[in-house]
Amino acid sequence: MSTKKLLILPGDGIGPEVMREVARVTAWLSRKRDITFEIDEDLVGGASLAEYGVPIRDEVIEKARTADAVLFGSVGDPAWSHVGFDKRPEVAILKLRQELGLFANLRPAKVFDALVDASTLKADVIKGLDIMIVRETVGGIYFGEPRGIETLPNGEKRGINTEVYTTSEIERVARVAFDLARKRNNSVCSVEKCNVMESGLLWKEVVTDLHAREYSDVKLSHMLADNCAMQLVRNPAQFDVIVTGNLFGDLLSDLASMLTGSLGMLPSATLGAVQEDGRRPALYEPIHGSAPDIAGQGIANPIAQILSFAMLLRYSFDLQTEADMIEAAVAAVLATGLRTADIMSPGLARVGTDVMGEAIVREL
Amino acid sequence: MSTKKLLILPGDGIGPEVMREVARVTAWLSRKRDITFEIDEDLVGGASLAEYGVPIRDEVIEKARTADAVLFGSVGDPAWSHVGFDKRPEVAILKLRQELGLFANLRPAKVFDALVDASTLKADVIKGLDIMIVRETVGGIYFGEPRGIETLPNGEKRGINTEVYTTSEIERVARVAFDLARKRNNSVCSVEKCNVMESGLLWKEVVTDLHAREYSDVKLSHMLADNCAMQLVRNPAQFDVIVTGNLFGDLLSDLASMLTGSLGMLPSATLGAVQEDGRRPALYEPIHGSAPDIAGQGIANPIAQILSFAMLLRYSFDLQTEADMIEAAVAAVLATGLRTADIMSPGLARVGTDVMGEAIVREL
Ligand SMILES: CC(C)[C@H](C(=O)O)[C@@H](O)C(=O)O
Ligand SMILES: CC(C)[C@H](C(=O)O)[C@@H](O)C(=O)O
Repeated sequence: MSTKKLLILPGDGIGPEVMREVARVTAWLSRKRDITFEIDEDLVGGASLAEYGVPIRDEVIEKARTADAVLFGSVGDPAWSHVGFDKRPEVAILKLRQELGLFANLRPAKVFDALVDASTLKADVIKGLDIMIVRETVGGIYFGEPRGIETLPNGEKRGINTEVYTTSEIERVARVAFDLARKRNNSVCSVEKCNVMESGLLWKEVVTDLHAREYSDVKLSHMLADNCAMQLVRNPAQFDVIVTGNLFGDLLSDLASMLTGSLGMLPSATLGAVQEDGRRPALYEPIHGSAPDIAGQGIANPIAQILSFAMLLRYSFDLQTEADMIEAAVAAVLATGLRTADIMSPGLARVGTDVMGEAIVREL
Repeated sequence: MSTKKLLILPGDGIGPEVMREVARVTAWLSRKRDITFEIDEDLVGGASLAEYGVPIRDEVIEKARTADAVLFGSVGDPAWSHVGFDKRPEVAILKLRQELGLFANLRPAKVFDALVDASTLKADVIKGLDIMIVRETVGGIYFGEPRGIETLPNGEKRGINTEVYTTSEIERVARVAFDLARKRNNSVCSVEKCNVMESGLLWKEVVTDLHAREYSDVKLSHMLADNCAMQLVRNPAQFDVIVTGNLFGDLLSDLASMLTGSLGMLPSATLGAVQEDGRRPALYEPIHGSAPDIAGQGIANPIAQILSFAMLLRYSFDLQTEADMIEAAVAAVLATGLRTADIMSPGLARVGTDVMGEAIVREL
């Protein structure tokens, strides 16, 4: 790949603050590693609503389509919570996922040794935890039709959403999970609610068939979503890769990442299908949200955003060495005892967003 | 109330084992407190499938309708997981909820002082925890139409389920939550996914309006379901009453109860609307499932089933003294250090289902 086209979309809340720290890393890459990007930056979410009246412009979607990778911050802003369903900031990420066909969201829930104490769970339950949740992100109840709110003859209202999954939608995301498992601990747990939902029943059937046909070397188990929520608390170490639909994945991946005590540390990647020209659309974003409650205070943890960028280097540009270096620098800084507020423990040094970002680049 | 008609439905797995221990309590009630029930017992779930070929007979639903209260065990049996969607054991509880209009499932997540150590969460995070989750149970995606699996022209399959909520369905369950909050810490958190689902948007609107009209003395907050899953792990003590739909309630209540480390201890009540004759249909069941992995071994914890019966005495028969006595007996037995396997801690006495049941009745 000659030029490396990167689209940066900081978004709302703490998004722009933590994204600023990534700029230090790209500066270092160009200075010390002679790696430069053609970087474009644009507004999404509440920031775009304020400027353009829409959560994302078609132009930005086109830019994302032609970029080699998208680095996303976060969207969501209470100031825009009353503007109507089509104009909420969240539409930005939902549209990007759907328009670019980003169907597989990879969400690691990993405990950093230095941060075991930051979890509300006991150390022996979570030490060394390393789960990968593969969440389907362009189907299910997020996008199914019919949907909406209608008024009934008696004056009541009725809210409707539709969960839909087809064989091929389930297969392609299950494939991502099985492929990942082969490079990890070779075990996949497929999660649905097949005792109540037919869409879950089909999910289970399709995963089972695909496994038998192509992945019988991988260990496959099935679990109901309610049980999975419990098992993640009871004994999270039992899981390697979890694959599930859009809605269950939303709850379960947030739950799993909170178990680690390191929510502000966790990156994610959302991948599309490999295109005819060999390119694979991909978007990288922290697992945490826009955190409006702490935005603007300079105290947000930039690590998830920096690690999302490392993941981007690794998966979209095959820059393994540089990704390794960034991840090692993060670990080294944590080992020196520097902490942002979210991962603070007694006796350590509490620092702000910028000091943390600087420290990481200094370690590089 | 002159005769007290009780329908007992033990169900599958550990259901019959733990229900046997309730018989000791009813025997004590009649012997020592001169309280007798007209008790009928019947099969549901896999047990009913084995005997009658259906998960629940219409006759049993009729019995439930005319009983003053239903004490339910649990349904779910891997042996019947391949019989087809209409014949799965779970249909028993789903039909009972719907046919009797049991729309409000009250699920306490309470930490017993003696059991703080049984949780995977740190003691200071969960000590004294007492959350009440009010889950809607006759609507939402569990029952919405259209539903099913269809074959597309290209040979693919498509699984569909529909989430539907109307104004009145939301109002009646929110009312239960607000009324409960007034007797507790006066705070309700309403949970949906209004940033993605219109049904969640309507949910939020209806709860907000009802609150403004009739319950403005109660503190009301709103939370997205994914955030709620995280907050339950991060700081569960922030919650008093949580009200949510059927599917989110399924995951979040299981999650909340697992936090307590006392899943085998937690009862639940599912209530319908007060009828013209003043009766209120009600079903009581443990929060735990049929636990097929430990069924038949005599090691299941009977406490959730016994406390479900205490709840039944309290809510359906106004037998406050007797309910208090049973709850006190459970606490006393735990204080003596008796433990079933699920709540075992080093140094305490591990006992089976029957020894635990006997010990509780001896304390009465
Ligand atoms: C912002 C929101 C629409 C989004 C989702 O629900 O998918 C977020 O919670 C996430 O998990 O990425
Ligand atoms: C058995 C099953 C249908 C049921 C449900 O999903 O409602 C159970 O998980 C519950 O929570 O009572």
